[in-house]
Amino acid sequence: MDPDAVAKAFVEHYYSTFDANRAGLANLYQEGSMLTFEGQKIQGSQSIVAKLTSLPFQQCKHNITTVDCQPSGSGGMLVFVSGNLQLAGEQHALKFSQVF
Amino acid sequence: MDPDAVAKAFVEHYYSTFDANRAGLANLYQEGSMLTFEGQKIQGSQSIVAKLTSLPFQQCKHNITTVDCQPSGSGGMLVFVSGNLQLAGEQHALKFSQVF
Repeated sequence: MDPDAVAKAFVEHYYSTFDANRAGLANLYQEGSMLTFEGQKIQGSQSIVAKLTSLPFQQCKHNITTVDCQPSGSGGMLVFVSGNLQLAGEQHALKFSQVF
Repeated sequence: MDPDAVAKAFVEHYYSTFDANRAGLANLYQEGSMLTFEGQKIQGSQSIVAKLTSLPFQQCKHNITTVDCQPSGSGGMLVFVSGNLQLAGEQHALKFSQVF
């Protein structure tokens, strides 16, 4: 399967889960996973989901602008995403970027 | 040595080289290195530097806003950078982000 298509499918799944049921992101992280969020390092699926569900907004919608991917060490893949994050009740979208 | 300090030192070295002598970036890439630049995949030190030196601006200055790093597979490190790119003769800076 085309790596770019896999990356795009993963990214769409990740953000649709984030927007609809943030706790469901637990399935997309493992115990060894690490999230660096605005400078804070958080390790493990449970801690990551606790952080993401505690963010100070409820409803949100991620609109993806770019998805770039390239092979990473030992069969992995590096995926770089940028886009806009629309929060309920806010007029202006926030720009975001994230790496998987 | 503190991984965050290593990441920060690398990032400062990378962008000061980019701004002062773009061809000197060749030493920071290997044959197996890949650059994905606005969706285009470029492999190998020589091709990467050819791309970067052919960008349609001469003088530029990168101002770093954030440097986040975390361990990656097999002893590697993932570094995420965001900041502003000021081009000579342009009033407004461009926002950029890059992953190493």
